[in-house]
Amino acid sequence: MLLFACDYLEGAHEAILEAFVRTNREQLPGYGNDHYCESAKEKIRKACDAPDAEIYFLAGGTQTNSTVIAAYLAAYEGVVAVETGHINVHEAGAVEYTGHKVMTVPQHQGKMCPQELEAFLAKFWNDPSHEHMVFPGMVYISHPTEYGTLYTRAELEAISAVTNKYQIPLFLYGARLGYGLCSSSTDVTIQDIARLCDCFYIGGTKVGALCGEAVVFPKGNAPKHFLTITKQHGAMTAKGRLLGVQFDTLFTDDLYFKIARGAIELADYLKAEFVKRGYKLYLDSPTNQQFIVLENAEMEQLKEQVGYEYWEPYDETHSVVRFATSWATTREMVDELFSIIDGLKKA
Amino acid sequence: MLLFACDYLEGAHEAILEAFVRTNREQLPGYGNDHYCESAKEKIRKACDAPDAEIYFLAGGTQTNSTVIAAYLAAYEGVVAVETGHINVHEAGAVEYTGHKVMTVPQHQGKMCPQELEAFLAKFWNDPSHEHMVFPGMVYISHPTEYGTLYTRAELEAISAVTNKYQIPLFLYGARLGYGLCSSSTDVTIQDIARLCDCFYIGGTKVGALCGEAVVFPKGNAPKHFLTITKQHGAMTAKGRLLGVQFDTLFTDDLYFKIARGAIELADYLKAEFVKRGYKLYLDSPTNQQFIVLENAEMEQLKEQVGYEYWEPYDETHSVVRFATSWATTREMVDELFSIIDGLKKA
Amino acid sequence: MLLFACDYLEGAHEAILEAFVRTNREQLPGYGNDHYCESAKEKIRKACDAPDAEIYFLAGGTQTNSTVIAAYLAAYEGVVAVETGHINVHEAGAVEYTGHKVMTVPQHQGKMCPQELEAFLAKFWNDPSHEHMVFPGMVYISHPTEYGTLYTRAELEAISAVTNKYQIPLFLYGARLGYGLCSSSTDVTIQDIARLCDCFYIGGTKVGALCGEAVVFPKGNAPKHFLTITKQHGAMTAKGRLLGVQFDTLFTDDLYFKIARGAIELADYLKAEFVKRGYKLYLDSPTNQQFIVLENAEMEQLKEQVGYEYWEPYDETHSVVRFATSWATTREMVDELFSIIDGLKKA
Amino acid sequence: MLLFACDYLEGAHEAILEAFVRTNREQLPGYGNDHYCESAKEKIRKACDAPDAEIYFLAGGTQTNSTVIAAYLAAYEGVVAVETGHINVHEAGAVEYTGHKVMTVPQHQGKMCPQELEAFLAKFWNDPSHEHMVFPGMVYISHPTEYGTLYTRAELEAISAVTNKYQIPLFLYGARLGYGLCSSSTDVTIQDIARLCDCFYIGGTKVGALCGEAVVFPKGNAPKHFLTITKQHGAMTAKGRLLGVQFDTLFTDDLYFKIARGAIELADYLKAEFVKRGYKLYLDSPTNQQFIVLENAEMEQLKEQVGYEYWEPYDETHSVVRFATSWATTREMVDELFSIIDGLKKA
Repeated sequence: MLLFACDYLEGAHEAILEAFVRTNREQLPGYGNDHYCESAKEKIRKACDAPDAEIYFLAGGTQTNSTVIAAYLAAYEGVVAVETGHINVHEAGAVEYTGHKVMTVPQHQGKMCPQELEAFLAKFWNDPSHEHMVFPGMVYISHPTEYGTLYTRAELEAISAVTNKYQIPLFLYGARLGYGLCSSSTDVTIQDIARLCDCFYIGGTKVGALCGEAVVFPKGNAPKHFLTITKQHGAMTAKGRLLGVQFDTLFTDDLYFKIARGAIELADYLKAEFVKRGYKLYLDSPTNQQFIVLENAEMEQLKEQVGYEYWEPYDETHSVVRFATSWATTREMVDELFSIIDGLKKA
Repeated sequence: MLLFACDYLEGAHEAILEAFVRTNREQLPGYGNDHYCESAKEKIRKACDAPDAEIYFLAGGTQTNSTVIAAYLAAYEGVVAVETGHINVHEAGAVEYTGHKVMTVPQHQGKMCPQELEAFLAKFWNDPSHEHMVFPGMVYISHPTEYGTLYTRAELEAISAVTNKYQIPLFLYGARLGYGLCSSSTDVTIQDIARLCDCFYIGGTKVGALCGEAVVFPKGNAPKHFLTITKQHGAMTAKGRLLGVQFDTLFTDDLYFKIARGAIELADYLKAEFVKRGYKLYLDSPTNQQFIVLENAEMEQLKEQVGYEYWEPYDETHSVVRFATSWATTREMVDELFSIIDGLKKA
Repeated sequence: MLLFACDYLEGAHEAILEAFVRTNREQLPGYGNDHYCESAKEKIRKACDAPDAEIYFLAGGTQTNSTVIAAYLAAYEGVVAVETGHINVHEAGAVEYTGHKVMTVPQHQGKMCPQELEAFLAKFWNDPSHEHMVFPGMVYISHPTEYGTLYTRAELEAISAVTNKYQIPLFLYGARLGYGLCSSSTDVTIQDIARLCDCFYIGGTKVGALCGEAVVFPKGNAPKHFLTITKQHGAMTAKGRLLGVQFDTLFTDDLYFKIARGAIELADYLKAEFVKRGYKLYLDSPTNQQFIVLENAEMEQLKEQVGYEYWEPYDETHSVVRFATSWATTREMVDELFSIIDGLKKA
Repeated sequence: MLLFACDYLEGAHEAILEAFVRTNREQLPGYGNDHYCESAKEKIRKACDAPDAEIYFLAGGTQTNSTVIAAYLAAYEGVVAVETGHINVHEAGAVEYTGHKVMTVPQHQGKMCPQELEAFLAKFWNDPSHEHMVFPGMVYISHPTEYGTLYTRAELEAISAVTNKYQIPLFLYGARLGYGLCSSSTDVTIQDIARLCDCFYIGGTKVGALCGEAVVFPKGNAPKHFLTITKQHGAMTAKGRLLGVQFDTLFTDDLYFKIARGAIELADYLKAEFVKRGYKLYLDSPTNQQFIVLENAEMEQLKEQVGYEYWEPYDETHSVVRFATSWATTREMVDELFSIIDGLKKA
């Protein structure tokens, strides 16, 4: 069956597998102290134009979010996110498990509004009983968001200005960062992100790696003893090479960006094909996740031949469905999707 | 440089890399719902003679220990381990981070004494103020232990009898389980472990995998919603295939046991070579970790050509040093080690 | 200065102080094992018509909420409350500190809507990815609410029916329970609450005691080892008599209800006096907390002579202000308040 | 029955009850912002000769320990205590519940040895894998200890020198501090403690109060937002007067020290009477807790007329039993105890 449900359906980009094979018998120290990790870090520092960046490799997204957030927050602090933020919905309460509240502000197509954020923080500090409340201790945003949307550079600058004003760190969740950076309608570069955020991560799992996220503290500002904190969270990888080799490969010859660009081109193509056939877009996503409104009966028929991700009800007779492309999607796969869809229409 | 410091110096057994390459473009659902995970589970059930076993794949050892232990314990309970247990020393307080005390009993070459365990539990329940104390809620043992030693079947049966009597689960940490099962001087089989423990894990990271531990609940007795618990701990792997493909390979044609046996043969050979040269063994380890007493000056000289793991001081002029073999060690490497040692002696 | 800011401005009802004096030199065992605690429990069981009730005395409200909630929830569960619930706003994240999410539904004058609760729970269980989400594990409601409002018996029955259907406990926060039960416009009795809730507490601190809340598990359904859990939370009182003597006094000759009734009569009088003078009620509270809309300039002037609690802005020129009566309020104090208010008007 | 089991058998010193009665109808702000709290703090600052001290009143000992310890420690840190420390044995894992390990060193009649502490800390920092371990982040000592013993000034200075050298705070648990300070064989003053410790608390519950502990940060060095932290731990008292009035009374006219001295005199008398009759002391306690070795049969007989605290077995035929005096003990009560004992002997 043809699957478009998400962007982690295949293994790893072949260059990564080749690197595993090539380096396999090399004896290397554990816990991230090997030269592949070092090399990967150096390449990421260059890509980010952040020579002082401290970088750690963790295995997955939820793990990264809860480890970073807990490392930053004092016990009496929580993290501010939009209601639809991944940490607030789909991480099984991993942040709360570490003792911290996820404090929510409204979402706008998955994005946080800088003015609303400022109002939220001002309200807290002006509240005469704020000492009985959770202190907002950092801000979490997703880029791309859970709806595939992107912040503009101006929006990121505005959010960053707010967090600077309130002296709390800005953390950017980048599980799909590559797809955001390579969107055809973004003005945000990875250097912008390194400049504007206190911490962000470069998602590997969904952008060509078997697993792995590169956590970047761009100003050499990692929380004290972050290594021990990752150990305490069960987030330290014994064979650090597993992550080092992958990120070293991804940041060699711009591979990370190349494969993201490929996925974006196919997502744009997929979107155009849906639009051409008169389908409604739930929202106009500029990245690799496309949210299409399908008539329920058609959605059911399609299920037998194509794997998609059911998102949410749209109205009585329609639903929102996600189709994602990835580094592994081919033009042939998209064409096959529409040949199936067109076939259903005729039948 | 020649490294014997630990058993996670190389990548993965080549059969695993081949399986990655072979299956790479196959589209598979995430989170462990793919057929490689299913196949691996079925093979493990067979190997354990435990048809009802529930099996989960996690990425690393500390993660597995803290997730399993937290999943089992009520808030008012702690886990009983020997003082040298990995969870008590080298996991950065990961268990306590989940809110639970590690309660210690003495160690004997890394092992727990069943009688001392029983006395510990009896003392708690007989204490008139035990309601003000942490309840012992499970028992954690390592096999092999952190000193490479092994329980006999009789010892495991005695410990299991105690935990059954007190109705608390017995959890066996098996990061190096393969090397324990394939020791030339053990009477414990994986079926024994499945029969006697409430939970154990089959270590992959140190026995041929890039990463991964297979957690086995042999009587279909996984804690309720264990999947959600792994997510909450950041221990769920998006691309479940990463672990499924590896364990499916390791449990095909007895690969797991074959590679463990190879490491044991070389460890026995390494030990014999040390003994032949008059070195003192710190203890007589029957597994892949060998603890040798070295004269300090020699230890320093050796450091320039061989990577070993400094363990602890022995006396004023000697130290205990660990040499480990693994699935990747070759006879040539051991021979080279002794040619270096003999060379130092002559010099 | 005349204070109406809250209902914990004075010490304790004099009958309690007398009981302290009377019993002071009596030697009693600690930790709640004294006969005053026993007697208080028996009287509460009678008042609740709940002969099997298990009862524990804790010192304060936040402590009680976080201890009870953590005792009930599995690690992967959270507690459902309205957005304005005390646990969600004014307890400094005490629930999250124990590792659990507070999951919110909308509030209606501080109350939870049974239909919205049911919809929330149904949505969770119907969500195909609910295993990646926090499980709703109990429901928390306040009676009176943080806005002084009350559930009707029919509403409580409807909420209870929902929690029974989903087999999760219903917990009622009763810091001001007395004032709710003695409102002139309620049809809810303490027996109703004991019948419909799985746990609730009878607030003492705000209803005549120096401190203390009586936690009632009306069906003998206290979480296992709840005593040890209170100890672990730092919520066990060494001199249990401190709480036992107070609740024994409060539940002798209906004192608890008598003093609550007195506060309600004065709150009704205070409300009527405000209304008579043309003030707007923010909402029509039937209990001892009255929320009045004041013109900002008047509010500022009043501050010099009367202590009230600023609640929230109403519009550009008005604010919502809380005036609370308590067991200690007298008619003279209310009269003095209005003589001050009338004086300001004239000036 | 005559009870000597502990020092919290009676209510409160009568001066406290009188103060409650006297101040009862005074309207006071909550949460410790009343003038009795202020006055009590000022008196304690004077008593400690610590004009910059920040002082907080909490309700009980376990609560105070876990709140203070959690407030000080970073997530990756634990607290060092002797094996018999109250936090390690009799607080139901309250410290671990906040996520931190209790790290133990040996006890010597309940005391920590400064040299052993230094060795423990040195070993940690010298361990090449200490980044995989829990960092020792503070030191906890009890004065008097759980065995009634006392540190000398020289010992406290030595421990303080070690914690200064390693730049970690020294916290002194003082549930029975008064009895320690008023021992006839101590050279430690409260000013010494304020000078040498980073935090300590002055126990009220066991020294004349109904409840309450005064936490002192003698150098104005309270952890940031400690007030919010107490709220988060459920350790903030709504009617702060409950604690303020008590400590204001206890620190007026040296009452705290007077009542402690009285208890010490009676403890010395009780000890002398036991010794006179040939009883063996388990250890020579200089404070209000006396540990006597009783023959088991006599212990059983005595139980019918006298409440004592069984401590631990001594040998096959004897047990260690605790007799405690308190602010409420009278000479008549001690005389009655020995008249019962002598009566049993004759029978």
